[in-house]
Amino acid sequence: MSQGNPKASPSASNRREFVQVSAGLTAFGCASIAATAATTDTSSEDHSTDAGESTSLIRPGDTILFQGDSITDVGRDRATADKPNQQAPLGNGYAWLAAAAMLVDRPDDELKIFNRGISGDKVYQLDDRWQENCLDIKPNVLSILIGVNDIWHKLKGNYDKTFVEYEQDYHALIERTKAALPNVRLVICEPFVLRCGAVDDKWFPEFDDFRAAARRVSEAEGATFVPFQSMFDRAIKHAPAKHWASDGVHPTNAGAALMAHTWLRTVGA
Amino acid sequence: MSQGNPKASPSASNRREFVQVSAGLTAFGCASIAATAATTDTSSEDHSTDAGESTSLIRPGDTILFQGDSITDVGRDRATADKPNQQAPLGNGYAWLAAAAMLVDRPDDELKIFNRGISGDKVYQLDDRWQENCLDIKPNVLSILIGVNDIWHKLKGNYDKTFVEYEQDYHALIERTKAALPNVRLVICEPFVLRCGAVDDKWFPEFDDFRAAARRVSEAEGATFVPFQSMFDRAIKHAPAKHWASDGVHPTNAGAALMAHTWLRTVGA
Repeated sequence: MSQGNPKASPSASNRREFVQVSAGLTAFGCASIAATAATTDTSSEDHSTDAGESTSLIRPGDTILFQGDSITDVGRDRATADKPNQQAPLGNGYAWLAAAAMLVDRPDDELKIFNRGISGDKVYQLDDRWQENCLDIKPNVLSILIGVNDIWHKLKGNYDKTFVEYEQDYHALIERTKAALPNVRLVICEPFVLRCGAVDDKWFPEFDDFRAAARRVSEAEGATFVPFQSMFDRAIKHAPAKHWASDGVHPTNAGAALMAHTWLRTVGA
Repeated sequence: MSQGNPKASPSASNRREFVQVSAGLTAFGCASIAATAATTDTSSEDHSTDAGESTSLIRPGDTILFQGDSITDVGRDRATADKPNQQAPLGNGYAWLAAAAMLVDRPDDELKIFNRGISGDKVYQLDDRWQENCLDIKPNVLSILIGVNDIWHKLKGNYDKTFVEYEQDYHALIERTKAALPNVRLVICEPFVLRCGAVDDKWFPEFDDFRAAARRVSEAEGATFVPFQSMFDRAIKHAPAKHWASDGVHPTNAGAALMAHTWLRTVGA
């Protein structure tokens, strides 16, 4: 697979984002984003050579950071958190499986992959630990999956903010990140649930508001959006919801594997 | 991702095989195959338009069959074996995870995916059940992973054939398949072990002879070769061998996920 050009021009970069979004569209049929991408990209005829080089968001030498809550954390070892590319500090979830695939596929690219997901986190809690757990790491690629606790803890009565604050806080977090790391490439993952276990009708339609908010943040911030909910909505045609996430929130091994696949496919890794 | 052209010309087909092999090379650095592919492909300048269309071995409408032993079987439900695209009859291994990814990525392609792996099988036992368990299914794409029992059962004293018979029997099985299904697209997966659990020094160097035999069969038969041993040899730099296959032979969930990734990547799905 072609690697990204580390010195890609701005126009090549625009083209890459278009290719990224288009890939997501082909897979998941998000017509509204298609229209957005089509209108913002005017360079597709001019950079045919770039297309092959720019199909991956991941470039040689990149530091890649996975951030989020328990779905990203999955039992990662804190004591060795500063050691890149090893299973123990990368946990046992989609982040580790995606990392393993990239490391095995690209052994000469000197990637450095870290995980700093923490179980239970909501978006404002990422902000509380962002200097040490993101900015100091100086990632070239930052992937975030956050949101399910923002609604779950509210349903449990432990929290009282809505998707409006979630969206505001998420934007502020990304703006803070861009101010410190102007060249960071962003991946925003869609929060998702499966209708089983702890997830019942009480979650809806509010959960859809959180999902839509994450998508708006991604679009407004020029991130690559990984549509995990669309993926699981298709996956349940082939296996029951509990096969993918027995409690409706935390993926099984099969759910994590499918997430890693879709993450890699969406970022073109 | 572009789909293969169902009516690809023979030259486009040659080009596709070249692309497949090249993809494997990029990932796994098999110089000898690179030379073979480079010398047999003379059409790369003439079919630039085909390249995008022919990067996937999987085409709309395909019936895909996974065949093999316990590593493919992984508890699949026999009672529903004739039902395509469902988790229970596809098991819980790499075949299911690869199938799930294809089905989620390509919901409109009307793929039909089956698994007929049976625990304990050696290559001659595939031949015993080939009419019912392969030819009658008429796969467009046939993926086979077989070989570890051919040596393991020998080490246990239950079997006395060598890699020479394995290679002969494997060739005969493929020739029988091609005679019945002349247009079948073949995927031959490399047998692999990890050095832990049941796998010790007694397995070597004979196991390497079996791996090399599978590769020779793949090359001679024009199949797409999935280099699982090379993959796991890289993977153990990032997690211990037992993380990938606790007994050295049967993949864990993480091992199966990495296998599915490499299978999909190699066939360009």
